[in-house]
Amino acid sequence: MKHTKIKELLQSADVKAEVYAKGWVRTFRNNQFVALNDGSTIHNIQCVVDFENTSADTLKRITTGAAIAVKGALIESKGAGQRFEIQVKELEILGDSDPEKFPMQPKKHSLEFLRENAHLRVRTNAFGAIMRVRSVLSFAVHQYFQEKGFVYVNTPIITGSDAEGAGEMFKVTALPFDGTPRTEDGKVDYKKDFFGKETNLTVSGQLEGETFAMALGQIYTFGPTFRAENSNTSRHLAEFWMIEPEVAFNDLEDNMDLAEDFIQYVIKYVVEKCADDLKFLEGRLLEEEKQKPQAERSELALLDKLQFVLNNNFKRVSYTEAIDILRNSKPNKNKKFNYIIDEWGADLQSEHERYLVEKHFKCPVILFDYPANIKAFYMRLNEDGKTVRAMDILFPGIGEIVGGSQREERYDVLVEKMKALGIDEEELWWYLDTRRFGSAVHSGFGLGFERLVLFVTGMTNIRDVIPFPRTPQNAEF
Amino acid sequence: MKHTKIKELLQSADVKAEVYAKGWVRTFRNNQFVALNDGSTIHNIQCVVDFENTSADTLKRITTGAAIAVKGALIESKGAGQRFEIQVKELEILGDSDPEKFPMQPKKHSLEFLRENAHLRVRTNAFGAIMRVRSVLSFAVHQYFQEKGFVYVNTPIITGSDAEGAGEMFKVTALPFDGTPRTEDGKVDYKKDFFGKETNLTVSGQLEGETFAMALGQIYTFGPTFRAENSNTSRHLAEFWMIEPEVAFNDLEDNMDLAEDFIQYVIKYVVEKCADDLKFLEGRLLEEEKQKPQAERSELALLDKLQFVLNNNFKRVSYTEAIDILRNSKPNKNKKFNYIIDEWGADLQSEHERYLVEKHFKCPVILFDYPANIKAFYMRLNEDGKTVRAMDILFPGIGEIVGGSQREERYDVLVEKMKALGIDEEELWWYLDTRRFGSAVHSGFGLGFERLVLFVTGMTNIRDVIPFPRTPQNAEF
Repeated sequence: MKHTKIKELLQSADVKAEVYAKGWVRTFRNNQFVALNDGSTIHNIQCVVDFENTSADTLKRITTGAAIAVKGALIESKGAGQRFEIQVKELEILGDSDPEKFPMQPKKHSLEFLRENAHLRVRTNAFGAIMRVRSVLSFAVHQYFQEKGFVYVNTPIITGSDAEGAGEMFKVTALPFDGTPRTEDGKVDYKKDFFGKETNLTVSGQLEGETFAMALGQIYTFGPTFRAENSNTSRHLAEFWMIEPEVAFNDLEDNMDLAEDFIQYVIKYVVEKCADDLKFLEGRLLEEEKQKPQAERSELALLDKLQFVLNNNFKRVSYTEAIDILRNSKPNKNKKFNYIIDEWGADLQSEHERYLVEKHFKCPVILFDYPANIKAFYMRLNEDGKTVRAMDILFPGIGEIVGGSQREERYDVLVEKMKALGIDEEELWWYLDTRRFGSAVHSGFGLGFERLVLFVTGMTNIRDVIPFPRTPQNAEF
Repeated sequence: MKHTKIKELLQSADVKAEVYAKGWVRTFRNNQFVALNDGSTIHNIQCVVDFENTSADTLKRITTGAAIAVKGALIESKGAGQRFEIQVKELEILGDSDPEKFPMQPKKHSLEFLRENAHLRVRTNAFGAIMRVRSVLSFAVHQYFQEKGFVYVNTPIITGSDAEGAGEMFKVTALPFDGTPRTEDGKVDYKKDFFGKETNLTVSGQLEGETFAMALGQIYTFGPTFRAENSNTSRHLAEFWMIEPEVAFNDLEDNMDLAEDFIQYVIKYVVEKCADDLKFLEGRLLEEEKQKPQAERSELALLDKLQFVLNNNFKRVSYTEAIDILRNSKPNKNKKFNYIIDEWGADLQSEHERYLVEKHFKCPVILFDYPANIKAFYMRLNEDGKTVRAMDILFPGIGEIVGGSQREERYDVLVEKMKALGIDEEELWWYLDTRRFGSAVHSGFGLGFERLVLFVTGMTNIRDVIPFPRTPQNAEF
């Protein structure tokens, strides 16, 4: 007999004379009630053990974390909050779990402790829910783009070009530190390395993605990207997943429309598909915020916050308007900002973005048309000669979740910009080819997937929404 | 007016008074007929230019590779093989393409030349088709597992553990080669590296995946994996994408059922969704094989080969049976194999696998129950004490496409095996925890995604089915 998933058992149309379930014991009460979970749903199924006819040895081995199999009748439950339970006829211990040693006790653990046990934290309700939501959200990403005819492109992870300058890069090498091959003039001889040149981990698939967009029209990437930056914050990871669509013939407004439609689609999808998990996470967040002073608590409960994003357009604000708002804001006048905004051209800090999103507009905001000199070389210069067709999407509680732009499609303007910034044209010969041959207006953006998962799950530390976080001084597992 | 994708125009229900299209010129014949492609489909739309009322300058700029926009009427076409064409009223050159310089001329280029122009080859029919098929196949992978309730898990790319031994690893580091920090005894001081320890690029997400399967039940990974092996073959990449499902409570037979069902599902999906692209690729393969002697040509055309896989069960053969077949085979008796099979225990080489699949069984084959000492430490030891519950799936023309096993769930047996092989138990403390706490039978496999794309597209070199291949001495782009 094949076992049935607990999710299916709990959704049964009716009682059943015999069912077979396998899973892990979450709790065992009164020598009688097993809460069994198999990861298919956040809900446990209650298994009622016939303790009078079960050996004392077996009863002793029903401990938190143990893997067991139960056969019995699926009957209506008298307990609250569950329609069915299993009246156990046979119970088999598949794998023991020594209650003295199993780290995941049925009590509240600190998130820090759980991070150190990332291989086991997924056995808790919260992390099971987070990882299911993350998975469904990933699928929504693919489904959105595929339905629209986008081509999924796996841009390279190991890259020989380091020109984009999105951040510090990790070196990838097969050369030894001891006895490193050297050229005659004493430099590292990268010709002897695996790829015959210096290579790094990618910080973005955008440039390669653009070459595909200029052939396939609409493409997207969804893969790991890396930053070797010593940022020990709750919003940064050294290894994270990024989604980067790129569309030929799209201008900045099309790009904003795409980003907004995309984000609303994936949130709607997960709200529909992960109702139970999100409800649990909403409760978790409420509990957590009870520890905080009233002023710091979220104004909306998790599901209301998600609905708010679905039901409201993102506010589109030019950088210039944003600077005006910030300049005249209370925290600026009262010098509460760490960086006071006094003139056009200033780079916006996290504190400014949060003010705009959380205090001023109280909704997701798309900032666009930034000063050229605080943005990347490939962004389309506006006719004013001083701003570029960049956009950032800012989310409440998260900050920047999307960064994108219309790309500079004019060969001459692009080359001039690269020269001014000292970016090697020869190294990017292939990128420039897109502007040499059949260039056209095109746009794209990058969305940090973990930040989206943070927003959707209501978690506050990015290390808690990726299976095995990579951060400075931490690459365990 | 928004432009319409060429795929949609070609699928129009009826003629239209005005349509707007954008794309790249594939060819321009008789100063009149533009074959326009925008990547949405392998088919071009014919745009008939009113050359008498178009400036000579504009006509001159309609060259292969140029980006143009056309407005006009969508009318029925008299040409063969196309229902509609555009009678152009307005034509705009968006981006020129100097015909003297554009590398992708409308003629046959060698695959080697195209690899060197990986950023442009996707503008050809063949590579456009391959990349669309690859994308749809990726989506089929996700849809299959999501429909079955599997959780997608992003296992780490940068890993601190090098214990699996699936292959040579690339080092990931932020340390410099010049002035590398050293400990007192002169060793590299990895404590000073970004992660505070030695780190590498992952060769497999399996071990981390197992920890999630033992909580969520059914999981899968789909991400990049790496081998720093100097294999300059048509079947190996240094960076490739791998799919690794792992299922709690599945034994080896369940694992074989899953792999077979999965492969058939994704092939069926792509056969249905990518009919035009696959038809083109079938024709390409036929053309290519005309150069070969009759004996080396495929017995089946591409689509027939795919149908064959859908309509036939994979042949399941134990390693022991396979050895018997090989020992008694003609090439073994005539000493045609490079490695003669004379006794049980021999590792199978590619030549043996190909004989079994292509000559003997003539269908996909699942080999199982291999000798323990030629397989990995984590595979479940059979009761015979000498074989393990491993399985490899072999495909005609491809060789090994899947490697999997039931995992050793018994803590003591696993630790003994690790000791015998000198695998550090302390480093894998977290992996052993899955056997310490609630262990259970479980199984999984790894499928090299590019090999599947090779099979489906009928291409013969793995460098031609990934956007930017990474191989020894090559990390361009």
